[in-house]
Amino acid sequence: MQNFVFRNSTKIIFGKDTEATVGEESIKYGKKLLLHYGGGSIKSTGLYDSVVTSLREQSIEIFELGDVQPNPRVSLVREGVSICKENNIDFILAVGGGSVIDSAKAIAAGAKYEGDVWDFFTGKPVTECLPIGVVLTIPAAGSETSTGTVITNEDGLYKRATGHDTMRPQFAILNPVLTYTLPSYQTACGITDMIAHILERYFTNEKNVELTDRLCEATLKTIINNAHTVLENPTNYDARAEIMWAGTIAHNDSLGTGRIGDWASHDIEHEISGIYDIAHGAGLAIIFPAWMKYVYKHDVKRFAQFANRVWDVEIDLNDLEKTALAGINKIEQFFRSIGMPITLTEVGIGDEHLEKMAKKATERGPLGNFVKLSEEDVHHIYHLAR
Amino acid sequence: MQNFVFRNSTKIIFGKDTEATVGEESIKYGKKLLLHYGGGSIKSTGLYDSVVTSLREQSIEIFELGDVQPNPRVSLVREGVSICKENNIDFILAVGGGSVIDSAKAIAAGAKYEGDVWDFFTGKPVTECLPIGVVLTIPAAGSETSTGTVITNEDGLYKRATGHDTMRPQFAILNPVLTYTLPSYQTACGITDMIAHILERYFTNEKNVELTDRLCEATLKTIINNAHTVLENPTNYDARAEIMWAGTIAHNDSLGTGRIGDWASHDIEHEISGIYDIAHGAGLAIIFPAWMKYVYKHDVKRFAQFANRVWDVEIDLNDLEKTALAGINKIEQFFRSIGMPITLTEVGIGDEHLEKMAKKATERGPLGNFVKLSEEDVHHIYHLAR
Repeated sequence: MQNFVFRNSTKIIFGKDTEATVGEESIKYGKKLLLHYGGGSIKSTGLYDSVVTSLREQSIEIFELGDVQPNPRVSLVREGVSICKENNIDFILAVGGGSVIDSAKAIAAGAKYEGDVWDFFTGKPVTECLPIGVVLTIPAAGSETSTGTVITNEDGLYKRATGHDTMRPQFAILNPVLTYTLPSYQTACGITDMIAHILERYFTNEKNVELTDRLCEATLKTIINNAHTVLENPTNYDARAEIMWAGTIAHNDSLGTGRIGDWASHDIEHEISGIYDIAHGAGLAIIFPAWMKYVYKHDVKRFAQFANRVWDVEIDLNDLEKTALAGINKIEQFFRSIGMPITLTEVGIGDEHLEKMAKKATERGPLGNFVKLSEEDVHHIYHLAR
Repeated sequence: MQNFVFRNSTKIIFGKDTEATVGEESIKYGKKLLLHYGGGSIKSTGLYDSVVTSLREQSIEIFELGDVQPNPRVSLVREGVSICKENNIDFILAVGGGSVIDSAKAIAAGAKYEGDVWDFFTGKPVTECLPIGVVLTIPAAGSETSTGTVITNEDGLYKRATGHDTMRPQFAILNPVLTYTLPSYQTACGITDMIAHILERYFTNEKNVELTDRLCEATLKTIINNAHTVLENPTNYDARAEIMWAGTIAHNDSLGTGRIGDWASHDIEHEISGIYDIAHGAGLAIIFPAWMKYVYKHDVKRFAQFANRVWDVEIDLNDLEKTALAGINKIEQFFRSIGMPITLTEVGIGDEHLEKMAKKATERGPLGNFVKLSEEDVHHIYHLAR
């Protein structure tokens, strides 16, 4: 087990009707608030009204910036930064999913910085942020308690990540009822994203990480067991609650303590959703099985353990490779069963950009830690994913 | 799943040599520090010197109070409170196990209060504390990231608990190497205590808590799998690390989210270690199996799940009770295998005080949540534990 530092200080307020507490939580950070959100769904569901009512009860002055797109853009972030600077905003409230939260985090960093916010995505470290709060509507990205953000620059279609401790939200309100109206496809993309967050941590070269292995497996099993229930019965509170809490646990850093995660699949996927604007979760469902097929020989025992403990595949001691491959097959079939694409072809992506994507993905060096992947390796993985 | 609020903000600094950071962590909270510890072991192992060196490098003024006993006493707490008040102490550093940390927490509350600190253990709520830091030497109580403390009042031998968010340590330094010198018996008591913390949460009447069930089971399996290794080879870093991190996870509140725990066994045990001064862990090894035998019929399915998922007992669908009892037998045998007593008789406790203990344990009302236990029930459990 590696040495580690772990602290996750986000206050989780979980359960029915918890969005009514957003005003009393927000007022702790100031009187002037930027309310940041995506499309119109929070208005049609009534969530917008509930949030505004709760904020007004605390006499909080509200500034608004909506229209965050999936794969959030730096242009909107810059707009948010200007609003914050011009109005001396104290606090940013993100109401939405990972894209809205990531956009809010980038605004929070930009608001405390003289230069252009994109600098933080090209190497400049973040040192300071406005405080952020979250009302989560899409369990997926885990951004509600994480320190990271991923933003796309339309100029060159770069999708890049940054992060800092001060970016971690102060509070996150998680009401599973707010996820009832999520379309199936978006629910499934979220499920895929949270599974991917666990897999990135699970596939490590670190030996002697039994506790975190088992915690990863426990969380994966729970997500898998509840996935079909929420897709078949979107208003099943109990299953929605399991999925929502698992999505946070998957990415709150606790499952990665003492081990070095991989994260190549995320980087490989970012090039796809950076260019093609497909959902991040869908891209991960395509890339992860391809990555697994490309790297599993590096540690067949770990893949066999995954197959056995997560998917109940019986271990064939005379053919561990068979066991390992059965696990990869299981996850591929699972993604398909929840309506995810599992090939690039299915989402209409041909060969035309694969070479360029592999080059761009690795332009800052090889990807991953479980196996270090060169430009050529990444190109192979894109081909395996066709 | 119940609504819940979860926040655990303690900074964990885990791994080899991490005690060298104690000065730079402590100085964040002030220049005047009360160094609180137990017997002489931290001096003989050299830990005392390492800690003092690191504190002095930050020019921190050190006041000292040692001699914390297992089942820490309110008399020493009162002494600590006086030192803090007389010297305007900024920060309390606990170097030791659960008893030292609990004692430090009580001092931290008393230092901010005009009246007698025992008031907090008889109903007065804590509202304010001095900040606390921890260098952990005994993985067991989970007090390093919890909000609670248990103190014994020699006057009447009352053992009582209190807690508050502000009692949660600011940081906890966990170096598994510091646990190499723990005697086997103390190691085993610690293992029993952390298992008990998970069981108290596991046995709940809340339905639809799959994620936390599985996280509990994952942590239990890890502790069980590493227990014999640390007892047979006390300097096995990897196994010590698994046990140490599991002890914190067991009690950092994450495993209890969305569910109501039981805690009767802890209350029943407190009367034993309050009167007889046996180790808390040993008392739990005696009481928990007795409690299980007394209550398992209340939810045979949950006990069968425990037997199957934690102990790999095959489920007999035609005789779930047999499966449930096999699990109880497994844990009893496990406690015995790590050198714990499993009957009151073994530790020399006869019938003389059982009636009085049952009365005292329930004088503030029935115990537990899984099954509500009256004075008579508790008396039965003491008898089952003979």
